[in-house]
Amino acid sequence: MNASSPVEVLQALIRCPSVTPAEGGALTVLEDLLKPLGFAVDRMVERDVDTPDIENLYARAGTDGPHLMFAGHSDVVPVGDEADWSAGPFSGEVRDGMLFGRGAVDMKGGIACFIAAYARLVEAGKVPRGSVSLLITGDEEGPAVNGTVKLLEWAAARGERWDACLVGEPTNPDTLGDMIKIGRRGSVSGTVTVRGVQGHAAYPHLADSPVRGALSLAKSLMFPAFDEGTENFQPSNLEVTSIDVGNAATNVIPATARFKFNIRFNDHWDADSVKAEILRRLNAAAVDPELRPGRAAIAYEMVWSERPSHVFLTRSNSLISSLSGAIETVTGRTPKLSTTGGTSDARFIKDYCPVVEFGLVGQTMHMVDERVSVADLETLTVIYQTFIEQWFAHADA
Amino acid sequence: MNASSPVEVLQALIRCPSVTPAEGGALTVLEDLLKPLGFAVDRMVERDVDTPDIENLYARAGTDGPHLMFAGHSDVVPVGDEADWSAGPFSGEVRDGMLFGRGAVDMKGGIACFIAAYARLVEAGKVPRGSVSLLITGDEEGPAVNGTVKLLEWAAARGERWDACLVGEPTNPDTLGDMIKIGRRGSVSGTVTVRGVQGHAAYPHLADSPVRGALSLAKSLMFPAFDEGTENFQPSNLEVTSIDVGNAATNVIPATARFKFNIRFNDHWDADSVKAEILRRLNAAAVDPELRPGRAAIAYEMVWSERPSHVFLTRSNSLISSLSGAIETVTGRTPKLSTTGGTSDARFIKDYCPVVEFGLVGQTMHMVDERVSVADLETLTVIYQTFIEQWFAHADA
Ligand SMILES: [Zn+2]
Ligand SMILES: [Zn+2]
Repeated sequence: MNASSPVEVLQALIRCPSVTPAEGGALTVLEDLLKPLGFAVDRMVERDVDTPDIENLYARAGTDGPHLMFAGHSDVVPVGDEADWSAGPFSGEVRDGMLFGRGAVDMKGGIACFIAAYARLVEAGKVPRGSVSLLITGDEEGPAVNGTVKLLEWAAARGERWDACLVGEPTNPDTLGDMIKIGRRGSVSGTVTVRGVQGHAAYPHLADSPVRGALSLAKSLMFPAFDEGTENFQPSNLEVTSIDVGNAATNVIPATARFKFNIRFNDHWDADSVKAEILRRLNAAAVDPELRPGRAAIAYEMVWSERPSHVFLTRSNSLISSLSGAIETVTGRTPKLSTTGGTSDARFIKDYCPVVEFGLVGQTMHMVDERVSVADLETLTVIYQTFIEQWFAHADA
Repeated sequence: MNASSPVEVLQALIRCPSVTPAEGGALTVLEDLLKPLGFAVDRMVERDVDTPDIENLYARAGTDGPHLMFAGHSDVVPVGDEADWSAGPFSGEVRDGMLFGRGAVDMKGGIACFIAAYARLVEAGKVPRGSVSLLITGDEEGPAVNGTVKLLEWAAARGERWDACLVGEPTNPDTLGDMIKIGRRGSVSGTVTVRGVQGHAAYPHLADSPVRGALSLAKSLMFPAFDEGTENFQPSNLEVTSIDVGNAATNVIPATARFKFNIRFNDHWDADSVKAEILRRLNAAAVDPELRPGRAAIAYEMVWSERPSHVFLTRSNSLISSLSGAIETVTGRTPKLSTTGGTSDARFIKDYCPVVEFGLVGQTMHMVDERVSVADLETLTVIYQTFIEQWFAHADA
């Protein structure tokens, strides 16, 4: 296999059926590719009580600073019904210029391009004077318990320090070069259970409808808006994702009602302050008489989901400008610096060094017929190569 | 058995296990009691596609007017766990002055008192000069499809006409003489299904939360109040009895949300006008931007429950005053003229003649250890006897 060919590397990775939590041979492919390029490779299995064992990989070329990390994941989501695919989901088949397979864009493609970019630097005698490392987890699409978090802790414990990180997740909505992610909103979820008093619908004064309480509380979380957005972020947004009572009897006022919510919050907040605001709203709504005139405060319980995702924003101009400059040089396009979308493993990395995200076009990720154009693989390889050169040039200066 | 003893008649009825839809022998007991008292007795089985066959009874003494009807039901609700009863639910056992058994107050007790009252008039040579009839259904506690409605249609079709009706349901909250029901609120139920657009919680602008829609629509039905009550009625009251989404995924905005409601409405409305008001509120809320700024109108479907219960109010002063006067004479208590509580079969009878409801104390109805005091049975018998005499005296005049 030719390490400087992103198509060949990606095909080798796709042929490893590494559906979370399976390693599927993908890390062995990476190890075999990286060692000849000068990387010291560590693989470690992480274990936890409640989740499957996960194998991760950390590879470093060079010993000195500055130190650039590329982060990604070798695991993929399930393929769904294989019969629906135009080409085998683990085939890596190329047809009409498109390479098919689960992980083509999310994100074996990004890993392949980064390795090819580094291989081309090695071939050209342009090995960066500092260090380049790859942090590859097998648990990004799963519970993420035994993945990036533990891998970072493991590496930091043995003295690894990084100056910047590029995450190779697919960030472009339509065209390669559209969008860099320079931050992500945080995410907090919770469940509210409202306790009422059951009774007959004809005697509402003898009952206390928890539906009225749940409506008041839920509304207080969705209105008014938490903020109007910040310089770099969309407005925070809270969605009540489910309300469930399960009362089949038309004539009965039920005893309890439960709703779940999720907020995506921007850098006006942190996880603690957004939780405090949520509680403030619930407590205010609990004594709002509108839907429950003359009643005592709504009795409710609030349970937060286990781990909040923290908001972050990268403020490293040199990192952003190296990446943005490389994209402009190669594609002629000025990428949008975005903080939209869901969470990513960058939320863990930002505690160690500045982090940005840029990869392929995400349109087919997680779908049947996930695929990437061979042309995009070549372009992203050149972008990554240019970025590495520009980042080390800035970092040296 | 002594027909003028309410205790003996009630024991005979309780010993018939007439849990809906079973006749259980109860109508045979009635037939055997009524024929010697001069009643012509008809029993008929009513059938319907979707519900069990039900046997009903109609008995009339006399051929001329004025014509007073007593209406009730011989069926009872299930006994629950028999082991929880202090005395057998079909035993009719008397212990410490209390007669135990399913149906003791709801409403074999009321039937027993009316028969005993009539028997005492016969014994005293005071048979009313008009007609007295009993309309007894076996389907009041069930779907009520093959019960009072069909029995009234059957009787009306063969030329029966009534001047007034007394329903013997338990109407007293605490003490015999507390309360006459002179009307009932109507009841309408419906289910609203809100159609949204499913999506990821991180991209709410690409989705359309049906939870937001359901909250807006549900709130519009509960606030503001439909009215502040009328001269004879409590305020109309709407309860959202269930909201159900069933979305387990925290990160997903669901596609649909559904809620059910029930309104108890007073005589400011009829079923059609209250439905129109509900639709008016839903349509106004559907375009309210508060929870869904910048969105198109909420897409929802409204399905009404099959049969609304119509509101009614008895305006017959002679009927009310005869009953109220009898209660005052016998108990010294002035009964409250009430329109509270759930629906009853009186809602069907009011289309044929003025109707009021008065019976035993309802506290133990539908419960384990349903029971009635022997003293109350005697008192109600005397009230019914006095009422019959007073009503015919007024009707004659
Ligand atoms: Zn990914
Ligand atoms: Zn009843």
